[in-house]
Amino acid sequence: MWSQETPTAAVLIIGNEILSGQVQDANLVYIATRLSELGIRLKETRMVEDVEEDMIEAVLALSKRYTHVFTTGGIGPTHDDITAVTMAKAFGRPLCCSLEALARLMARYPNPQAPEALTRMTVMPVGAALIDNTVSAAPGFQLENVFVLAGIPSIAKAMFEACVPRLTKGPARHVREVVGEVIEGAIAQGLEDLDAAFPGIEIGSYPYWYSETNHGVRVIIKGLRLDEVEAVEAKIISLMDAHPGYWAAARREP
Amino acid sequence: MWSQETPTAAVLIIGNEILSGQVQDANLVYIATRLSELGIRLKETRMVEDVEEDMIEAVLALSKRYTHVFTTGGIGPTHDDITAVTMAKAFGRPLCCSLEALARLMARYPNPQAPEALTRMTVMPVGAALIDNTVSAAPGFQLENVFVLAGIPSIAKAMFEACVPRLTKGPARHVREVVGEVIEGAIAQGLEDLDAAFPGIEIGSYPYWYSETNHGVRVIIKGLRLDEVEAVEAKIISLMDAHPGYWAAARREP
Repeated sequence: MWSQETPTAAVLIIGNEILSGQVQDANLVYIATRLSELGIRLKETRMVEDVEEDMIEAVLALSKRYTHVFTTGGIGPTHDDITAVTMAKAFGRPLCCSLEALARLMARYPNPQAPEALTRMTVMPVGAALIDNTVSAAPGFQLENVFVLAGIPSIAKAMFEACVPRLTKGPARHVREVVGEVIEGAIAQGLEDLDAAFPGIEIGSYPYWYSETNHGVRVIIKGLRLDEVEAVEAKIISLMDAHPGYWAAARREP
Repeated sequence: MWSQETPTAAVLIIGNEILSGQVQDANLVYIATRLSELGIRLKETRMVEDVEEDMIEAVLALSKRYTHVFTTGGIGPTHDDITAVTMAKAFGRPLCCSLEALARLMARYPNPQAPEALTRMTVMPVGAALIDNTVSAAPGFQLENVFVLAGIPSIAKAMFEACVPRLTKGPARHVREVVGEVIEGAIAQGLEDLDAAFPGIEIGSYPYWYSETNHGVRVIIKGLRLDEVEAVEAKIISLMDAHPGYWAAARREP
């Protein structure tokens, strides 16, 4: 399990395109995996439309509750990119043009035909700290404990990595996985007993079901102590060996 | 745009495995796409850990706010499957054993070696309406406006389809997509003008950036009136034709 002092995080994914199914979010798995490696517990993720009031409510709720908040999406130059303006409103800050962001954009795109469009990406809340964008120059920004990242996956990743030195980190947990072709119910009692016997270990049971003859369970074991994690891993392997898919088997017998 | 009377929905994805990055959610895109086809506006998605208080807070907030709520995950037979018990608590209902669910499970798995594990999947809030599971028999359930689905993708899809006749539907929107190898900023003003000229149309601009020489914009156009959607589509094609990637081009010139 995590300790009480573990730093926490939330991700707020902004964009109608995600909620209408047209674009699949590609950032959450990356951010979730990296946070886990950094010893930061991702407690919650929300996805909201590009609607000012919904974004404000969500970011303030998450900012109050968790150590770090990461937003993705809505910081480009078009009419539907309202994240920067909305974050300023959420935190009661006026908007400014970041001269540092402007310098970076002008260095990268020296002869823009429509400079106004370029400068839209320099508008951000007063006091925001820039987040480097090594991919396409236009920076993200940090406001209080909120890190505002782009939605484009390659850029979101680069920006996340640029934030890492600023994050409060905790001890990373050890993780083991055991996959077996058993019916989840067959090992349910055994897992529950292990869960009770090892309070420092988190045991997650994730069944998969591709077909009547191809199904099983993936068990993920996490904890701060490697010896405990490995002890539980060994016990779960024994448990699975003792329970070869009995429900499916029972069904095949008349 | 959607009308005021459009039915709304939220999805609540339950599971530590999603938040730790070990398992990628595979249900949201399916549910989001189907809701869109059914004329139901997916307004929000939340992902929370398997923690009772977090689940209760989220489901009650979403249930009050939207026409329909769909949860995925946590209804299997293991110790970490706490969704059914938590939903009962959230809505102040006692738990029962659904005799109909029990009958379905016994018909499907007639000779279980551990009947107790099997019966765990029959425990649900009093008054819940079953949701058929054509894949593995163990049903989901509906409680008020909350549809409790399994997390396994094949089962979640089957359960969602079983819910469709019970949903309040709206008129579906027409959707068109235009993809162009332009820099988003180049067409930003043009898109903003179109957005203002066609208040009934939602225009979403989603840049992609795979490399310095392979980037562009995907614009998604949605609306209830097909003639308007097609008119905006034609204008955006013209806009893109007039703006072949000028920022990148400018950078290549000395």
